[in-house]
Parts: sequence; structure tokens; C-alpha cells
Amino acid sequence: MILGQNQYGKAETRVVRITRDGPTHHIKDLTVSVALSGDMADVHLSGSNANVLTTDTTKNTVFAFAKEHGIASAEQFGIRLARHFVTNHDPITRARIRIEEHTWGRIPTPGPKRHSFVRGRQETRTAQVTHDDGGWEVLTGLKHLTVLNSTDSEFTGYAKDRYTTLPETRDRVLATEVHAVWRHAAAPGTAEPDPATPWDGSYERIREHLLQAFATTYSLSLQQTLYRMGERVLQECPGIDEIRLSLPNKHHFLVDLEPFGLKNDHEVYYAADRPYGLIEATVLRDGARPRIPVDVTNLP
Amino acid sequence: MILGQNQYGKAETRVVRITRDGPTHHIKDLTVSVALSGDMADVHLSGSNANVLTTDTTKNTVFAFAKEHGIASAEQFGIRLARHFVTNHDPITRARIRIEEHTWGRIPTPGPKRHSFVRGRQETRTAQVTHDDGGWEVLTGLKHLTVLNSTDSEFTGYAKDRYTTLPETRDRVLATEVHAVWRHAAAPGTAEPDPATPWDGSYERIREHLLQAFATTYSLSLQQTLYRMGERVLQECPGIDEIRLSLPNKHHFLVDLEPFGLKNDHEVYYAADRPYGLIEATVLRDGARPRIPVDVTNLP
Amino acid sequence: MILGQNQYGKAETRVVRITRDGPTHHIKDLTVSVALSGDMADVHLSGSNANVLTTDTTKNTVFAFAKEHGIASAEQFGIRLARHFVTNHDPITRARIRIEEHTWGRIPTPGPKRHSFVRGRQETRTAQVTHDDGGWEVLTGLKHLTVLNSTDSEFTGYAKDRYTTLPETRDRVLATEVHAVWRHAAAPGTAEPDPATPWDGSYERIREHLLQAFATTYSLSLQQTLYRMGERVLQECPGIDEIRLSLPNKHHFLVDLEPFGLKNDHEVYYAADRPYGLIEATVLRDGARPRIPVDVTNLP
Amino acid sequence: MILGQNQYGKAETRVVRITRDGPTHHIKDLTVSVALSGDMADVHLSGSNANVLTTDTTKNTVFAFAKEHGIASAEQFGIRLARHFVTNHDPITRARIRIEEHTWGRIPTPGPKRHSFVRGRQETRTAQVTHDDGGWEVLTGLKHLTVLNSTDSEFTGYAKDRYTTLPETRDRVLATEVHAVWRHAAAPGTAEPDPATPWDGSYERIREHLLQAFATTYSLSLQQTLYRMGERVLQECPGIDEIRLSLPNKHHFLVDLEPFGLKNDHEVYYAADRPYGLIEATVLRDGARPRIPVDVTNLP
Repeated sequence: MILGQNQYGKAETRVVRITRDGPTHHIKDLTVSVALSGDMADVHLSGSNANVLTTDTTKNTVFAFAKEHGIASAEQFGIRLARHFVTNHDPITRARIRIEEHTWGRIPTPGPKRHSFVRGRQETRTAQVTHDDGGWEVLTGLKHLTVLNSTDSEFTGYAKDRYTTLPETRDRVLATEVHAVWRHAAAPGTAEPDPATPWDGSYERIREHLLQAFATTYSLSLQQTLYRMGERVLQECPGIDEIRLSLPNKHHFLVDLEPFGLKNDHEVYYAADRPYGLIEATVLRDGARPRIPVDVTNLP
Repeated sequence: MILGQNQYGKAETRVVRITRDGPTHHIKDLTVSVALSGDMADVHLSGSNANVLTTDTTKNTVFAFAKEHGIASAEQFGIRLARHFVTNHDPITRARIRIEEHTWGRIPTPGPKRHSFVRGRQETRTAQVTHDDGGWEVLTGLKHLTVLNSTDSEFTGYAKDRYTTLPETRDRVLATEVHAVWRHAAAPGTAEPDPATPWDGSYERIREHLLQAFATTYSLSLQQTLYRMGERVLQECPGIDEIRLSLPNKHHFLVDLEPFGLKNDHEVYYAADRPYGLIEATVLRDGARPRIPVDVTNLP
Repeated sequence: MILGQNQYGKAETRVVRITRDGPTHHIKDLTVSVALSGDMADVHLSGSNANVLTTDTTKNTVFAFAKEHGIASAEQFGIRLARHFVTNHDPITRARIRIEEHTWGRIPTPGPKRHSFVRGRQETRTAQVTHDDGGWEVLTGLKHLTVLNSTDSEFTGYAKDRYTTLPETRDRVLATEVHAVWRHAAAPGTAEPDPATPWDGSYERIREHLLQAFATTYSLSLQQTLYRMGERVLQECPGIDEIRLSLPNKHHFLVDLEPFGLKNDHEVYYAADRPYGLIEATVLRDGARPRIPVDVTNLP
Repeated sequence: MILGQNQYGKAETRVVRITRDGPTHHIKDLTVSVALSGDMADVHLSGSNANVLTTDTTKNTVFAFAKEHGIASAEQFGIRLARHFVTNHDPITRARIRIEEHTWGRIPTPGPKRHSFVRGRQETRTAQVTHDDGGWEVLTGLKHLTVLNSTDSEFTGYAKDRYTTLPETRDRVLATEVHAVWRHAAAPGTAEPDPATPWDGSYERIREHLLQAFATTYSLSLQQTLYRMGERVLQECPGIDEIRLSLPNKHHFLVDLEPFGLKNDHEVYYAADRPYGLIEATVLRDGARPRIPVDVTNLP
């Protein structure tokens, strides 16, 4: 028998960092999962834990770093954690930090106090930082961004076989729940990503490009819409080398109202849960090597 | 044996209604659950379905009504459905319609087209309309409205017994996920609610009052905050007679960083999932009879 | 404004109790939610916590009682907790303890050691004990018990209106996910339930009666099946006075295979998630007063 | 820009197949997800659907095949579907079929009828069949198999750093929720897997080996237990070349009862949800190439 790829760490540590700037407070709310790899044959084969930094310690490190270094952004926090584990523990040669960020908006109140927040947005921002002796990889993403076009979508001209019954349509609702992961261009060699990277601004811009590409594409297929979304991000954001999108086709079926003597002129839809079409693809900058895994909905 | 309270109907019909006003489209997105009661002894005792309007028919009615009457608001749609079932089917003497409304915002795009939407807000708006020969009851509510104050909350002076270990605190994070249901004052006698009621505006106003009361109350206990939230809604909204709030105390524990030689001055918190405190109460206008059930998180 | 019904406590405390009997270990695994009521006007109106036994203390009490008294059964554990809170804290006049029990089976192994377990069964056993100066109420139940008959179910002779399209059927799949809550007959006066009640055996017997009634009833409607299930429990178990069942009709639609030149002779079904029929009813012993709430799926 | 890896198909088609053998019925209950790849540049770049077999057609094919060929096992059904899509549609060069199987047990009843079933077991069986011109890959697995040892687990001798606070323990509860995926040895060349493979029996045997290895290993670390589980499967099942296990360490913390004057001698535990340790590794037969993806919890 051979021990293959292995990793371990504490998953889903929920850390909330409050920063007080007089009456104005700021909040960062993350779920952090650490996965470490390295010289771990002994613990698997004989149960010797000598090389094992415990998952409890990785959790403590998340909390301590939130205090010592603050959380400038999910990506920057992940970089710091990954560097720490690989640098300070000889048996550990690779660290992967996955982060979900939960977004809060402010509740505007009279007076100078600004310490009240409300969870906004349905989508979750994600980040993944991987560091080993080959260098660094930073992925950013989002999941559960639900969007819908009520027209400007058709679906015709597809292949047909014995099992095809779907009628063509020139006007349908197109709805999906965007899962996206994009990869930031690596620094030269094995250098650490530039700490001055404006990760939060980059996220907001890419989110907006995804929304705009979805909204303004006259869609002949969800694949085409997907490609436009990825293409737009790469065109507009030179720092991104690769993006993978996973778009469930959340079917909205026109309800047949004829039995009731009614005509349904693209007005009443049944929103189905399952089954759903699932359209997935990677779009790459010329010359970039694909590195984002195929099963993107699992990140993190 | 005796047959006690019984009801039946189709649950969770997902209906999406698109209205086209030239290039501007509007969307209403509801999950509708119908529960009917009446002269139903036979079907339980002998299996005779003669009095049973099938759950499939109740589903069809939801779709057909979305076409025939549109969806002005969740409450108005529920009123129309409830009236239909009780009026048009003799054996049915009571109808309860529960609705969840999923909110969409617009994706702003260049040009005149306005048919692109993004799911906003984490909370779900709820409505429940009940109609029988005693009249009408309309409840509106929301669930999963997550809010947090990073200061201006303390917890001291509580009862202590042999099992008490909690230290008092003068400064804590107060976070909760608001579940609220409020009851609209009934029309005189058994009259139907005024169709001109501005249900959507009312909802937005009450949501804002809940947020403001949460944000601006210096909290000595979550019970006190809860009461202020309910009180404010009743004070500001004369059309509301009763409100019930269910507030999980989403604990944010200050992480002990002393083992690492660090001082945690209200900066780093661990956000716990379970267990959680659960604070529930009804606030009533003077003279109002309590009618909202105790287990409010179940509505709908 | 008036403060109406209110309650508070710690929800979802996950307590696991191991008992070692030499090499044979036993396990009880509960999720316990405490809700206390009483003289709580002050904390709501002024924020004074003097009457408030903290939710943290109620959680500690759950753990301490698991040690001091063991967990003979969910019901017995709930009775002990309810009695404690009402008896030992003057301001508290009512306690409701809700418990979910997670079932473990043994993994049979060679040798004398018996300390290995595997989670069995999909359903969760539930219990609710309520105690105030009016006495005691004990409810037991289960949820997510999924059952299916592949024949011996028909659905015909139902009422039809303009919106009815469902064809009658003489042979369908009948599937549901049983949610049930039954009420144990109260002891005379305000006496505490007999501690010698064999709660675990009672649960197993009632679960079996529900399964048998479902399996052996030739069904003309799900309502009829529901009534038979409740009736059987009351007939066979004299200690039960009332039972409420909530049965989602988990539709299995016969797939239309004719477009592919195939005949579907009750062989291939599409199992739908939503919408679903929802059939709910209470069955009572003659003379019993209905006390189980209508929204039974919320228990606990 | 370059189009990278892409795939599409219908996800989560819920198909239930009933087979009647006189009064004895049999049931297979699957959730099937199809992902197809091939010559799909056009649909992404120009929206031409000429090469696209619609996701609706892939769903229809699942239902039709359930009728035409029956469902001998999840794996056999997946092989048939994968072969169909790759063989019969030129633009499609690769098919990946993911299946979840929901297990039903019988409800024993008096008399000859055997058509009543109850959902058993908490875990879900999984299968994934991938077919392209390189050949075939068959993975089988399970998820959510929750197991617990109440003793014979210790954790000592681990690495310590500035952030380590965890005390060593010689006796702890070890609990996990097994997620496993194993790969069947491929047939020579690009041949299809032997249709006579006893997939169902193989699954039951491997499930039992996993349970036995978990239960009978005296555990010095969860990594060691994991390795023993994988090793045992490979040792006992020559047809398996690789297995990947993902084991969340479901922490059961001994509750500190000293503040209440009580001694907790391994009796009362708090079962935590998050964070949790996550231990993942692959075990391979000598000479086998690792092919199971790292993020195994995503299969299917």
C-alpha cells in the first residue's frame, strides 16, 4: 500500500474581527478552513504525531493572527496564514487556506455612532490561497449569486435524437445561480503576492462585470452567456489569468394555462428546483495554464 | 376515536409572475402553500374523496390566478386565493394561504431595457392569510434578517444558582437573526381586508423600524431589545395590532488570547452556531387579543 | 403596549452521555432546547435581569443533570429538567423542554469490547415536556420517517372544478415522510408523570404501529391512510390520548415514455421535491381535549 | 481568450424504478447527474447549438433507460448511460455520470404482499462512471456514514508551538462522518467494465470493512485510523486500486463539570458542529496511479 495525497487542518473556524475607529466600527466576518500537507507518513502509518501541528493549533492561529495582523482582506489574511504554516513548521511543505467572507452592510442611524450592521447580499465571497515551494496561487470567487433575465434568451437549433422532446423557444426566462472562481496572475518566480493588491476593489469590479455580462448578453444558450461572462472578466481585468464558472440553469417553465381557457403570454412561470441543467467551463487568457479544478462549486 | 383539526393542500408551489411594461419588466417571485379545512370527515374515515378539491387543483389555481389577477402583493394574492376556496367550494369552510416572497433587485444596465434582476437581501418576506366564517386574519413577517451591534450591549445583574458560571459583561457583541410576524388590524365584522392596503410599503416601513430599534437601543438584555423592536412597530404603525419576535442570540464569544501573550480588547470573536439563546415574545396593542401562535419561526 | 406570551432559554444544546458497563458502553445523544416563562416583565420593559436565570445556566444545567442523573430516556430527562427550573426558581412558572434524540446502533465486533456505534435510521425521535402549575404534558414524536408503498393506492372520485386537470388513478406510488407527535395521558391532577413509564419501549411500539398501518392500508386517499395510522396507535396504546400526523404527499409521477415508443407500466417514476401535497390531522381518544398544536412539524 | 475544460448536462434527475415480481416489488431510487464534453467550442463562442444534445434530452434518456434496461445497480446504469452518449453522438467524446443511491429497506408485513418500504441508513451510496476514448473509470463511494468510538482513542505527542493550548489525552471519544470514494481496477486497454461485476455486493463488503477497521483500531490519531480503513479495503478487495477518505473529526469535548462540584469521568460530552478537524488522504495499491480528485466530498 502507498499513502497518496493527504492533508489535514481545522475546517470552518468562524472568526469575526471588529476594529474600532472612534464611534465608527468596522467588521470582517470569515469562515476559515486550513489544510496542511507535508511529511506526514508517520502519523498515518504508525500513529506518531511528532510532525503534526494539531488542528486545534491551526484554529488558535487563525484567532491570534486576526488580533496580531488584523484582516485587511480575505486574500491577504489567507496569504499570511499560509506563509506562517509553511515557514515555521519544517514538516509542513504546503498550506491551503480557504475562506468564505460574509458581507455586512451598515444600518444607517442618526448621530455619530456607526456600530450597527445588517447582513446584505445573498452571495458569499470566497478565497483560496495555496502556498508550497513551487510558489503561490490565489483564487477568489463567489457563490450563490442568483440572477435572472426575463427575456432576450432563446434556445433553438440544437441536436435531436430519439429521446428529444424539448420544443424550441425564441423567448424564455434565463436564470442561474453564479458560482465563479478566478485565478490571480502569479508573481514572478516563487514570490509572494504583492501585499498592496487591492483585493476588495478587485472583487467588487469582477462581481459587477459578471452581472453586466449576464444582463446585457442576448443569449442563444447558457454556454454562450457563460463564455461572455468569463471573457469580459479577463478582458477588463489584466490581473486575472483564468476563470471558471458553474452555472445551474434554474429552469422557469411557462405554465400551461390552456386547460383553464387562459393564454400564458410569457407571464406565469413555474420555478423548478430539480433537475437542473448544469453548465460549467473555464475561460483562460492566451498562454495561461489551467489550474482551477473542474469541480468549482466545491471551492471553498 | 375522533377526528380533530385537519387541513390539506399543496405546499410550496413556486410561482414567478413577469409583467412587461414595454422594455421595463417587473417580477414577483412567491412560494405559496395552501391549507384547506372543512367537511372532511368522509375522506379520513372511509376514503371518499367527494368533498376533496385535490391539492393538484389548488396548485393549478395558484398559477391561474397569477395570470388572471396578477400578483399585486403577497397579501393581496393570498386574500384572493383564500376567498376563492371558501366561497366556491361548499365543503371548504376555512383556507389558510402561506406565502414566502423572494426579493429581486434590478441590475442597472445601459439603454432602455430593464429585464435583468439579481436576488437581493438575505431575509425572506412572509405572509399568511386565513379566512373562515369568522372573518379574516392577515399576518406579515420576515425571517433570516441578520443584524449585529458591535457595542452598546451589556449583560449584568442576572439571577445566579449552583449552575451559573457566566461572567457579567459591560460590552459585548449583540447579534441575532430576526424572525418576526405581525398581525394587521382586522376590518370590522367579517369584512374582507381593504384591497387598497399598501402592503408592500407597510412591509418596508416595518422592516426599517425593526432595524432602527435594534440599532439604536442601548441593550441591557436581548429581551429588552426585543420589546423595543415590537413596541416601536406598534407605536409607529397604527394598522398593526400584534407582533411576535423570535430572536436567537447568536453568541459571539471573545476569544481568550492570553495563552498567546495577546490582549483581546473587544476585537476578535468566535461566532458560535449552537447552542444559542432563544428569546421569544409577543407585544400587543392595548385591548388586542393575542392570535399569533407561539412558534413563530414556523410561519410560514 | 402589553407584553404577551414570552419565553427564553438555550436552544439546541448537544449533549452526549456515555455510560460504561465494563467493556460494554451505552450512548445517549440528545439535542436539548429549554424555554422558560414566568415573571419576566421587568427584563422586557426595563432591562433588569434580576429574574433571569441565564440561558448559559440552562445549558450548564443540561450537562450537569446528564452527569448527576444520567439519561434514562429523553422524556425522563426532560421531566427532571422541567421540574428543576419550575421548582427552584420562583420567577419561573413554566418550563418547556424539547429534545431530539439521535439514534445509534452498535457496530458488532469480535471480542468483548462494545464501544463502537453507527448512526442508524433516518428519522429523529422527539420529545417535549411542559410543566407549569397546571401540571404536566408529555409529547413524544418522530420526524423524517420516509415510507413508500409501490401499489395498493388509488385516488379517484374527487371534486372537480374549472382548475382541475388531474386524471384519476387506480394504482399509484404512495410515499410520505412521517412527522408525528403523540400525547401521553396525563397523571391525575397535577402529579408528575410516573418515572417508571417505559418511554423507550413505548416509542418503539408506536413507531412500529405507524409503519404497519401505513404498509397494510389499501389507500383510497392519504387522508384515509393518515387516519388509520393515528387510529391504530390510539387503539393499541391505551396510554396515548392524542396523535397528530403531518404527511407530505411525496409525489412520484409516472414518466410519460410514449414519445420514445415505450410503455410505462408502473415502472419508472419521477420523484418530485416541490410542490407537495401536505395532509395534516389530529386523531383523539373519545373525551380527550386536543392540545397538540396544529403546526406539528415544528416540534421540537 | 481560450475556452478551457467545459461540460454540461442535466443534474439531479430523481428516478425511481419499481420492478414487480408478483406480489414482491423491488425498488431502485437514484439521483442521476450527467456531464458531457466534446466538440463544444461553437456553442460557447457563437451560441450555435448544433452540437448540443440538450440537457432535457439527457434527462429523458435517464428515464427511458430505466425502462428499457432496468437498473441492475448504480454503476451498471451509469456505464450504460455513459456508453450511449459517447457512442451515439459524434460531438460528444466524454461522459461522466454521477449517481446517488437512496437505500430502502422493507417493512415486513403479514401475508404475501411485499410492496412497502422504509428509508434506512443515514449514509448515501455514490457512484461515478467516466468514459472517453481513453477508456473507463468507475468510482463507488458513500457519504454521511456517521460512526463513534467511545474509547480506545488517544491523542498525544504532537508538535507544539506558540499557539498550542490543547492538552494531551489518553482517552477520548472519536467520531467522524465517513466520506469515501474508491476506484475499481480498470479493465485491460479501453475495454468496458465487466457487466457481471457484482457491484451491490462489493459495496456492502467495503462498507463493512470500513466499519470494522474504524471500530477495531486502537487509535493514536484520526490519520492512523483513516489509513487503516483504506488499507483494509485494499487488502481485502483485490478489485479496488485506490481509495480516498475524508474524515471530519467531529469533536466531542468533555464538559468541565468542576464548577458544579461534579467529576466528569468520561461521561458527559458536548458534541460540537464547527469548527471541526478535517483529515483527508488517499491510499493506493502499489503501482496504481492516483486518479481520485482531492476534494472527494464533492463526489458526486
